[in-house]
Amino acid sequence: MKPVKVGLIGLGNVGSGTLSILVENAAGIAQKLGFPLEVAAVCSPRVAEKKLPEGLGAGVLRTTDWREVVNHPEVEIVAELVGGTGVAREAIEAATRAGKSVVTANKELLALHGAALWKGAIEAGANLAMEASVAGGIPIHTVLREGIAGDRVQSLFGILNGTSNYILTEIEQKGSAFEDVLKEAQRLGYAEADPSADIDGYDARSKLAILTALAFGEQITPADIYTEGIRRVTPLDFEYAHTLKHTIRLIGTARRVKGGLAMSVRPTLLAQDAIMASVNGAYNAVWVRGEYGQDTFYYGRGAGPHPTGVAVVSDLMRMARELRAGSPQRVSPFAHAKLESEKPVSREGIESAFYLRFQVKDQTGIISSLAGILAEHGISIDAVLQLPGESKAKLPFVITVEPAPEGAMAQALARMAKLPFMMEAPVAMPMEKGV
Amino acid sequence: MKPVKVGLIGLGNVGSGTLSILVENAAGIAQKLGFPLEVAAVCSPRVAEKKLPEGLGAGVLRTTDWREVVNHPEVEIVAELVGGTGVAREAIEAATRAGKSVVTANKELLALHGAALWKGAIEAGANLAMEASVAGGIPIHTVLREGIAGDRVQSLFGILNGTSNYILTEIEQKGSAFEDVLKEAQRLGYAEADPSADIDGYDARSKLAILTALAFGEQITPADIYTEGIRRVTPLDFEYAHTLKHTIRLIGTARRVKGGLAMSVRPTLLAQDAIMASVNGAYNAVWVRGEYGQDTFYYGRGAGPHPTGVAVVSDLMRMARELRAGSPQRVSPFAHAKLESEKPVSREGIESAFYLRFQVKDQTGIISSLAGILAEHGISIDAVLQLPGESKAKLPFVITVEPAPEGAMAQALARMAKLPFMMEAPVAMPMEKGV
Repeated sequence: MKPVKVGLIGLGNVGSGTLSILVENAAGIAQKLGFPLEVAAVCSPRVAEKKLPEGLGAGVLRTTDWREVVNHPEVEIVAELVGGTGVAREAIEAATRAGKSVVTANKELLALHGAALWKGAIEAGANLAMEASVAGGIPIHTVLREGIAGDRVQSLFGILNGTSNYILTEIEQKGSAFEDVLKEAQRLGYAEADPSADIDGYDARSKLAILTALAFGEQITPADIYTEGIRRVTPLDFEYAHTLKHTIRLIGTARRVKGGLAMSVRPTLLAQDAIMASVNGAYNAVWVRGEYGQDTFYYGRGAGPHPTGVAVVSDLMRMARELRAGSPQRVSPFAHAKLESEKPVSREGIESAFYLRFQVKDQTGIISSLAGILAEHGISIDAVLQLPGESKAKLPFVITVEPAPEGAMAQALARMAKLPFMMEAPVAMPMEKGV
Repeated sequence: MKPVKVGLIGLGNVGSGTLSILVENAAGIAQKLGFPLEVAAVCSPRVAEKKLPEGLGAGVLRTTDWREVVNHPEVEIVAELVGGTGVAREAIEAATRAGKSVVTANKELLALHGAALWKGAIEAGANLAMEASVAGGIPIHTVLREGIAGDRVQSLFGILNGTSNYILTEIEQKGSAFEDVLKEAQRLGYAEADPSADIDGYDARSKLAILTALAFGEQITPADIYTEGIRRVTPLDFEYAHTLKHTIRLIGTARRVKGGLAMSVRPTLLAQDAIMASVNGAYNAVWVRGEYGQDTFYYGRGAGPHPTGVAVVSDLMRMARELRAGSPQRVSPFAHAKLESEKPVSREGIESAFYLRFQVKDQTGIISSLAGILAEHGISIDAVLQLPGESKAKLPFVITVEPAPEGAMAQALARMAKLPFMMEAPVAMPMEKGV
């Protein structure tokens, strides 16, 4: 059977990983498909300097102009592996307008403009695939789109950013301060020079927006997702969390609640015996709870040229298979006709148990002041913990509270932050059970 | 768009779960597909006595004859949910011969005759789907077929039988004897009156044969898989395993080794900090190691009307989508043209660390006899453990050994079993790292 030819735009980490798998595993891919999948064109601003795989044919177009890939007469599927929201968007739109299928790894672009890109593709009769945009090595798109398509997702929880999970795991295992771990991670190349997207939760937020679209069929504006990063998590928080038989992870979550979807990305206490709590280092994981299939859990590498390359290549194989058969009718995952409201809801009324960590100047009456404020907002204390051996001038201690509405919690926290003995704003993290 | 109509053969646990999801979640399914998926016919030997969902239309054919489902002019996809290798096989073959797509949950039939069924379907231009045949709630077929299709699987490990995992977890948590836990599981309906398929490993073996076909593209004869059940696992084995910071699970494994595939189903010691070790109760899990994507892990319900129903409904959705588009070209997962040998290999040369548990009549010189035999077969002892407080007349103790070829291990075990102080044949379980 005639080969399907693909063009790659972008030869960075993901692009080069994808290219090496396409070349090295060509025989295995052809065996599974029943026909070969061939690279016809590659594009990079520095294509002349790139070390390309030896098996790449001499006839393959090497160009610095993405338009030459999109317009290449033999290219039927374009892989956009550039990232960002500029050239990437132009290239995807040009390719789908030309009726070509597109595979993209671009979480930022999809989170912001996924609905528009899908609309354009469907109107042009082209197909879009985006497995590599979330949790590189985990085929979570395939799972939500096909594997458990018959279920009705009730909630999902995920560790969606490998860098911040690596940093949290290092703080936990080595007891080092956040700043020191971050510097070491930057030195090792695990964190970027500007680490904000990872450690402030924005990268996880983009991925959560895409997963929510897939799981619930709603276009989510990333800015609607409550997001908090990991900068304030200390070794001491892990000590307290362990005392409570918990650990701390940056968790993105979306769940159906009365009136819509509750979504957040924030450091969260997880019970140590939860499977999610054993996800360490640069791994990602997603927990899905369905109305019918109940709990399923997915775990794998969060990033890396080869794990993400597998996602891109698997998408290319699916697009190729569908091209050869006449592509199945498509429904945008970003904009179902709604059966019910799945809009984001305000967090005010969402209930959660909380871990609260305070840094205070030691004096009498602290606990009674804090307990008084919590009581006035209708919040019940579950436990008060103070580990020994800390400085009296900046004394840390922890209160855990029973499930309370986030609105009440926020008001109480704002009042407590202003108390004269409070050395810094309290740290508050929800405590999740059963994920 | 015109609905796609399906017919269900079998209204037992899986059939009734499937039917209730198709009826209750009809709007959600139509939303994802872009067209409705409707039930046109159902079949069961006792269809008149079955309580069918209220939303099931009066026009739906209810019959006791599966041929009426297969031959129903509106039925485009047949779901075979009968089980066994008799009627099920006839129905699948009749449906594919008639060019109808088939969804099946039948692990036993697929493990024995999967290659022939696929050949027949491909020749007739029909499609086969079989997600529900392995690990009910986990979409592991979708993952292997599409999600990580671009990877080259090196090995997979799975907890593939929920009943035996439930029994092992109960022995572990309650310290009860195997026979007592089995009786209780039978009373609760978790184990069947004849429990052999579950506890002797045959059910897991069928599932491993199917997963191996999907992952490595080879038809596997179940009888070629070395299989050992859980009847000999005692509370004491868990005590020793915990002392060694391990637990015990019934693990099915397939991995590439020199010359082919090494496969087995057997009770195995897993390090307690491995994610797989935290799979408790009636859950299933699969660990996949790929050449490019590295480690991924999948977890969910092993069975149950609704979790398995989700797998069947998701397959029906895929078949329907493909029917509406013209079905993608198919390649049988059971019989790829081989790129290399992926035949089962003899276990003789496969190396593994082992846990050995002996029951002896206490006397002097026991350890030196055993150590002598192990040394003669070139096997190095890693640790000798004896927990306190046991009877001298039937004294248990444990030796763990460093990785050694299974052939040498089997010879040594056969010799040790004949020693005069040995009260019963030694128990030997491999110890797995890193799954």
